[in-house]
Amino acid sequence: MFPAIHLDSASEAPLYRQLSDAIKELIGNGRLDKGERLPATRELAGVLGLNRTTISAAYALLESEGLVQGHVGRGSFVLGEPRPPRSGLDWEKLLPAPGPVPPALAAPDGISFASSCPAEDLFPVDAFRRTCEEVLAGPDASAVLQLGSPSGYAPLRHYLMDESRREGVARTGDDLIVTNGCQQALDLIARVLVRPGDAVVVEDPVYPGLKNVLLQAGAQLVGVAAGVDGIDIDALERAVVRTRPRLIVITPDFQNPTGGTLPAGARRAALRIARAAGCVLVENDIYGELRYEGDPAPAIKQIDEAGDTVLLRSFSKLTFPGLRVGWVVAPEPLVARLAEAKHMADLHTDQLSQAVLLRFALSGRLKEHRARVLAAGAERLRAAVEGCQGSLPAGTHFTRPQGGMNLWVRLPEPLDAGDLVARAQREGVSYLPGRYFEVSRREPGGLRLSFAALSPEKIRGGLAILGRVFSSELARARLDRHEPAPAVV
Amino acid sequence: MFPAIHLDSASEAPLYRQLSDAIKELIGNGRLDKGERLPATRELAGVLGLNRTTISAAYALLESEGLVQGHVGRGSFVLGEPRPPRSGLDWEKLLPAPGPVPPALAAPDGISFASSCPAEDLFPVDAFRRTCEEVLAGPDASAVLQLGSPSGYAPLRHYLMDESRREGVARTGDDLIVTNGCQQALDLIARVLVRPGDAVVVEDPVYPGLKNVLLQAGAQLVGVAAGVDGIDIDALERAVVRTRPRLIVITPDFQNPTGGTLPAGARRAALRIARAAGCVLVENDIYGELRYEGDPAPAIKQIDEAGDTVLLRSFSKLTFPGLRVGWVVAPEPLVARLAEAKHMADLHTDQLSQAVLLRFALSGRLKEHRARVLAAGAERLRAAVEGCQGSLPAGTHFTRPQGGMNLWVRLPEPLDAGDLVARAQREGVSYLPGRYFEVSRREPGGLRLSFAALSPEKIRGGLAILGRVFSSELARARLDRHEPAPAVV
Repeated sequence: MFPAIHLDSASEAPLYRQLSDAIKELIGNGRLDKGERLPATRELAGVLGLNRTTISAAYALLESEGLVQGHVGRGSFVLGEPRPPRSGLDWEKLLPAPGPVPPALAAPDGISFASSCPAEDLFPVDAFRRTCEEVLAGPDASAVLQLGSPSGYAPLRHYLMDESRREGVARTGDDLIVTNGCQQALDLIARVLVRPGDAVVVEDPVYPGLKNVLLQAGAQLVGVAAGVDGIDIDALERAVVRTRPRLIVITPDFQNPTGGTLPAGARRAALRIARAAGCVLVENDIYGELRYEGDPAPAIKQIDEAGDTVLLRSFSKLTFPGLRVGWVVAPEPLVARLAEAKHMADLHTDQLSQAVLLRFALSGRLKEHRARVLAAGAERLRAAVEGCQGSLPAGTHFTRPQGGMNLWVRLPEPLDAGDLVARAQREGVSYLPGRYFEVSRREPGGLRLSFAALSPEKIRGGLAILGRVFSSELARARLDRHEPAPAVV
Repeated sequence: MFPAIHLDSASEAPLYRQLSDAIKELIGNGRLDKGERLPATRELAGVLGLNRTTISAAYALLESEGLVQGHVGRGSFVLGEPRPPRSGLDWEKLLPAPGPVPPALAAPDGISFASSCPAEDLFPVDAFRRTCEEVLAGPDASAVLQLGSPSGYAPLRHYLMDESRREGVARTGDDLIVTNGCQQALDLIARVLVRPGDAVVVEDPVYPGLKNVLLQAGAQLVGVAAGVDGIDIDALERAVVRTRPRLIVITPDFQNPTGGTLPAGARRAALRIARAAGCVLVENDIYGELRYEGDPAPAIKQIDEAGDTVLLRSFSKLTFPGLRVGWVVAPEPLVARLAEAKHMADLHTDQLSQAVLLRFALSGRLKEHRARVLAAGAERLRAAVEGCQGSLPAGTHFTRPQGGMNLWVRLPEPLDAGDLVARAQREGVSYLPGRYFEVSRREPGGLRLSFAALSPEKIRGGLAILGRVFSSELARARLDRHEPAPAVV
């Protein structure tokens, strides 16, 4: 319960300042903890018998002093103790403006559709422990612990290169570099290839980590609509002709956030478009191995006879995202520059994880694990699609992916998925609204449901709750539309 | 007859790959013609003394690359030459110019003074293996393998923060972020704080990884002379007043490459200078724990009452550089931006290594290991100093560090350490010449000797060889001086 606060209406100090001082004291003496949510202005106004604007003014004052932070629709949260004044540098002036704050995810006991990551309950911890033991009992243990190469741990590189050749995604003239997952691959590519002002074509909506790393490099993002069949090829061609981009970045399988997959013919078309424009095509194949149903289409890299496509892959989605190991297959001159950039970024990728994941693959445990992940994924995808079908209000649209971790929902008008995050969270369910994925097209009804980390029961339960929240808001919104408008004052 | 093929069983490359490369070469240079039949796997296995499956794997690899075609029951046939050069993008035109190529390091059986890294023979592999087992048998194993936080693995962050507070290098208002070693810390700081054209003061000579990451961010480097007593404080003050830098980066203990250490009084002066200029002081404390003799001076962060100093530390030099785990202690607003940059760079640092290093510290094994490393380091430092004293030609100057991994040698004129690298390497010894460390001052006689990874015997042996090389070149150079100059044509 929020501690009692006593204000003195006879005092000279204005009430909002008395209130802000009282809350400051509660923070200072530890009775309000970091992260705690302050009561809603309406609620505290009722308790204290004050006007709501007085409460808002007090909160604004606390926020201006860096003691609380307000989040639209979620309330105000305690940031920490009042800082003792430090007399040195003015950091706020020295630092660039902060980026967008990602929304808080679910309450610990809630159901979170907010993170596109694998199911922890499927992690084969025993098999993983045995794998570590084998690596560290082997003859290469000391070499694994010693300084490594920016290109990656040589035995893992050779293994991945051989697998890539066998699969036909690496050709003569290609090379391979190990990165800290696909995120670092995107970062290194942006550093090496993107100069400020360069146009870069991406899917819209798209994963924020992809969007932000390109923006940070100074790219002018050109969003091209993407849905269940991946990026819109006609729109892609128009955008490429119009903007002459330096890069096109495509996630052809089970794209994040839409779950969409580009058909084989469209892959050929994308390749032809990139080639005609002389721009680099980056194939972000982070989810490709997670196909639960249907036939796979070839990787773009595989059908690219010229071999210029830059292919990004990772162990993070199939195995353990806590281990940051991905890789890039691309023409040698590019890989050489990526290795230079990697050297400057962090010398090299952690070798323990590289060696353990190699052994995990060579021992056949990766294959066993993959079979379990695919079986569970199919079940979870089915639960998600059925849950959307059965629980979400009529008029809702959603993608039906054949794999991956995400599906994309569009709520019927006038619902705004961003406005409903807080209410859903109070009911114990979280998701990411569309605005985190927008490039240039606004889609207020859009939201991402990440289903892979949840059991089918939780998926069904979570969607039932979301269905109730969305339906009741929809009913209210439709009722409001028919109410006479209030006077404008 | 099928041409002779020689494979190297000692090579790191697997035999099937060596074989496939050898055959590829035979196809490329025309010794195997299109349409020619490769020997049957059984036959070639017999000739080469290999397992038949090795031959099959090599053939499969060649087939996957489109160089041969297998026909069941008839054998494998050469399809043609390796593919003609690819006709797609002009990568050389798309890519920025390559950076400086680091010199080749030692021959495999040579003595390398070229890498500032710890001794592999001291790695406590058994203790490390037990530590891994404990982490993966513990209740947090699944959480370690799951997606983590850009700020670092929470239990490690808390441990490091507590240790930092205990030591007096973290104050109220400070926060901590885990990075992939100090290299990534420097990179994130450069991304967040350095804008193109900003002046940044660094020691001269300085570690190339530090120099390059700042240059990449667009910094104008201002080198200030550094020697056995660290950076020259008077020159620092003049440089700061003249260039108004955004950052000053100092390695106060056992600097790379000089091995120099800044005395306590000079640390206070550096702090005062940074403060007066309102610029950020970065304390790159990567070697501080490796003190073999003498009394430690306090960290600059410790004497900074305002708390603005940005402290960089790492496990890489004391423990295992193959595991990339370092950290930054700095004011909260900066750490918040570093976490944003880290999120974009690679989501977070590998959690397996973070969890294992935490357990390595908590179990007391780190302390035991540190004692061994310090004892061995003292012995190696002594061998290096005595070797320089006893073997290098008269007129050579060198620093006498009290810890770390490096000492700096200045050969007598007219010797150029860069010119002598190749000759020393032919004699089996390698080192890095001064030009890799230069900022603005040329020092042709300068070279870095990294001694920590070598046994005292190798250090003495290597210095004896270098002494012979340098002395004979010196004698020749002095003789040349007295020869009449040749006609200039």
